[in-house]
Amino acid sequence: MRRVVATGTFDIIHPGHIYYLEESRKLGDELHVIVARDRNVRHKPRPVIGEAQRLKVVRALRVVDSARLGDETDMFRPIREIGPAVITLGFDQHFREEELERALRERGIGAGVVRIGEYTGDPCTSTRRIIERILEIRGSPGGPPNLRKGGS
Amino acid sequence: MRRVVATGTFDIIHPGHIYYLEESRKLGDELHVIVARDRNVRHKPRPVIGEAQRLKVVRALRVVDSARLGDETDMFRPIREIGPAVITLGFDQHFREEELERALRERGIGAGVVRIGEYTGDPCTSTRRIIERILEIRGSPGGPPNLRKGGS
Repeated sequence: MRRVVATGTFDIIHPGHIYYLEESRKLGDELHVIVARDRNVRHKPRPVIGEAQRLKVVRALRVVDSARLGDETDMFRPIREIGPAVITLGFDQHFREEELERALRERGIGAGVVRIGEYTGDPCTSTRRIIERILEIRGSPGGPPNLRKGGS
Repeated sequence: MRRVVATGTFDIIHPGHIYYLEESRKLGDELHVIVARDRNVRHKPRPVIGEAQRLKVVRALRVVDSARLGDETDMFRPIREIGPAVITLGFDQHFREEELERALRERGIGAGVVRIGEYTGDPCTSTRRIIERILEIRGSPGGPPNLRKGGS
């Protein structure tokens, strides 16, 4: 059983996430996703959605065989527990492949690291772009009058 | 084969949507989702995400057997094509069960209509609340300085 680990914040799910997960899944037989803890997201703005809710949405995706939250203090612990053959990085994830592989080796983890390319099939495929769009169309100075109309 | 039809905008996917779809799926053997067209969302603010992208995310959910966009002029057409035993409404969908059933009968469609209850398990389970939260934490007057840091 060749396990693949994919990781990410998955704040507002978009087709870029789905592409990343589907491409990751192709590299093995089982896709395990580690969802970033709220307090560990420090290299970009804090997530809009809390970790428990982000995890639920990731778990609901067909491509995902198993998903869990990351460890708050040791990012390698869930990786060790899963024992993947491959760990994938998204096109914009801030780790360098070689550095991550070295860190894994130092901890006795033999997984390979593969970077998945960027998905360009849709206009709103980053949480940043989705938020920019929301601020643009709903965030008029003086308050968002549209919001009172509801929407789900 | 007992088909169930669920419908919605599914602008920013959250556990409330997943609950609605999972409860709908339990009423039959196959869940078919009709995703609202951009131009047909008139009773609440226009979707942030375009219809093609919303459809892709709905299709990626495990609980969904089939998903398609609605018809721009005749909402009953895809329902007639699918031939469901049941059509479900979300707790906040603006149709009344009896009115919808009557409209279906008038068109020779024998499906029952079932309203699914509200999901209350997470704090951000409506697109409106997610957008309010984004405006609150990122939409400071004078521009969103946080956005320059990226985020996906």
